[in-house]
Amino acid sequence: MADYQHLIVEHSADVVRITMNRPARRNSLTFEHLTELLGAFHEAAGSGASGIVLGGAGPVFSAGHDFGDVAARDLDGVRELLTLCTDLMRTIESVPQVVVARVHGLATAAGCQLVASCDLAVAAEGAGFALPGGKGGWFCHTPAVPVARAIGRKRVMEMALTGDVVDAVTAERWGLVNRVVPGEGLDAAVDELLGRATRGSRASKAVGKQTLYAQLDRPEADAYAIAVEVMAAAAQTPAAVEGREAFLGKRAPVWTD
Amino acid sequence: MADYQHLIVEHSADVVRITMNRPARRNSLTFEHLTELLGAFHEAAGSGASGIVLGGAGPVFSAGHDFGDVAARDLDGVRELLTLCTDLMRTIESVPQVVVARVHGLATAAGCQLVASCDLAVAAEGAGFALPGGKGGWFCHTPAVPVARAIGRKRVMEMALTGDVVDAVTAERWGLVNRVVPGEGLDAAVDELLGRATRGSRASKAVGKQTLYAQLDRPEADAYAIAVEVMAAAAQTPAAVEGREAFLGKRAPVWTD
Amino acid sequence: MADYQHLIVEHSADVVRITMNRPARRNSLTFEHLTELLGAFHEAAGSGASGIVLGGAGPVFSAGHDFGDVAARDLDGVRELLTLCTDLMRTIESVPQVVVARVHGLATAAGCQLVASCDLAVAAEGAGFALPGGKGGWFCHTPAVPVARAIGRKRVMEMALTGDVVDAVTAERWGLVNRVVPGEGLDAAVDELLGRATRGSRASKAVGKQTLYAQLDRPEADAYAIAVEVMAAAAQTPAAVEGREAFLGKRAPVWTD
Repeated sequence: MADYQHLIVEHSADVVRITMNRPARRNSLTFEHLTELLGAFHEAAGSGASGIVLGGAGPVFSAGHDFGDVAARDLDGVRELLTLCTDLMRTIESVPQVVVARVHGLATAAGCQLVASCDLAVAAEGAGFALPGGKGGWFCHTPAVPVARAIGRKRVMEMALTGDVVDAVTAERWGLVNRVVPGEGLDAAVDELLGRATRGSRASKAVGKQTLYAQLDRPEADAYAIAVEVMAAAAQTPAAVEGREAFLGKRAPVWTD
Repeated sequence: MADYQHLIVEHSADVVRITMNRPARRNSLTFEHLTELLGAFHEAAGSGASGIVLGGAGPVFSAGHDFGDVAARDLDGVRELLTLCTDLMRTIESVPQVVVARVHGLATAAGCQLVASCDLAVAAEGAGFALPGGKGGWFCHTPAVPVARAIGRKRVMEMALTGDVVDAVTAERWGLVNRVVPGEGLDAAVDELLGRATRGSRASKAVGKQTLYAQLDRPEADAYAIAVEVMAAAAQTPAAVEGREAFLGKRAPVWTD
Repeated sequence: MADYQHLIVEHSADVVRITMNRPARRNSLTFEHLTELLGAFHEAAGSGASGIVLGGAGPVFSAGHDFGDVAARDLDGVRELLTLCTDLMRTIESVPQVVVARVHGLATAAGCQLVASCDLAVAAEGAGFALPGGKGGWFCHTPAVPVARAIGRKRVMEMALTGDVVDAVTAERWGLVNRVVPGEGLDAAVDELLGRATRGSRASKAVGKQTLYAQLDRPEADAYAIAVEVMAAAAQTPAAVEGREAFLGKRAPVWTD
């Protein structure tokens, strides 16, 4: 594995665990931190693992952009920073692995955007979620993109305008996270969900998550045009053939990809 | 009514009841079964009924595609199968009747897609919902299209990646079904909801549901461009005139279409 | 302030309160009433206030269009009426202020659309929400546009097809309103939420809410293209600079716009 300054990356069993590790800076996301995260996701994408867990060291999951890093940038510089950040969010959606956010504490601004961008999310009861730009001077425009798509219009407007923290139970009720568990059960809950989400053929699931993101937020006819074509092609893959033959032959399938 | 091999179609009072009737195959959807369902919805569309109930005979609502039918098909063959299946789903949305899914048991893959595609859905407490392709080798790409549009991004990702069954109460909380009732009250709950949903002018409601599906998943300005034009035209129809005149004249309306 | 026949408009502290005041007609929305509302929102937009509260006098929030006004109109006339109504809804989204609906009673048809179109909404426990066109002769096509975007597909279909009233607690659960409180606490709850939603820079928030509405309902890549560009530009504004400098200097920010 590459050597990271701001991350701990562990490859155990079938899972790559990427942990943001700038606790003294509340895992805020400088250009260098974002670059490392993007690199770690690309590395994990090619690792052969079936799952990725994204977490944070220290008391906070991630506080979003580092204002110290933003302050020195002009328009082009901030655009470059936000483009990198967006590349990271879209890469999380497009890597072939199932990505689970392990949210043990506060996830704010781009930190909340990370949670919304992971395929799945498990939160500790003490976790919290906020888009704080709205109570300051720099609105959380890009974090609101995936957060809006998870929780809906009135609720994202409340988060973005008030900037206040939404607790984990509310976040689950609104659809921002999949599970809320006591803090001491967080790792077990992450692993349990990831285990269920990574069963079966990885190749099938990789196409599956990418196609799902591709068809979201489109008129239904457009979404079906994408999904029908992909699903017809997918039916000819080794995994689909094996799945059918195992089912019809009443035996356990053996996944080779 | 046409003669169906895989369906029971009953036309009583003002409602067409279409029941998938391959219980020994868990109402799985072969090409022939889908063809009959499409035919039955087209027949019901022209029947003058105001409502359609879609149910399943035997312990399961529908298990989705029949792998025995898929196995023999090449790319063109599967595309033909999925195009037919998609035609059925879109026809359910476009028929002039209100369509209610009566979900008494498991609804998986394209069976779950049927529930998501009906205008309304009532589930028994023992019903369950799953997109099981994700734990096998053939991802539920097309079922995820309407399911995502009902329950949102994090939740469809959980269903599609894990393949596990979501219980009826959770399905209601997520917006996949409108009501959950004890199994013995299922028919009464379906009829009660259908009765309320079919009051008033059928002609008005037919345009209403089609326009609603047309404007969903579009930027709001585009959606309003559709809805304003349809609503302006609809204001001149006999039903709209009768509704206004009855209201202003403080009498009960008489619907002629 | 302009002189309004159908509205009470109060400008106190930092908030413009616009109250629909045709209680004898259940605050139904004639062309003249809509014109006044549009004018009042434009006036409030230029007032320097940070928030707008939309309420209704008398027992009902708003009953939607006035059938007496619709009856005399031909196709062009209804199109003109609905275009005006849509302009009002879109103006509520585009004014620089945070707009909160104060829903003390029934909000039906275009009245329910008003609630869905406000950035935030607080309802009294006794409030109710309906799209009644579906049980009559004139379907609520345009009200369904923002309501669908708040509550999702199966639920808007139920509201639009049945026309029945959804209570306030259900409306909150579905995401149509942000808070439900006992009636006697309604004004306090509106002011509390508005206070939290209007902290910080008004200029930042104005761009924020407009950009959020612009990126909704688009494929994610399109939404990010909008949000990245706006957020990069916004980083150079006085408010963003002040926010960063205050944060980095560990002092309270002073907002000048």
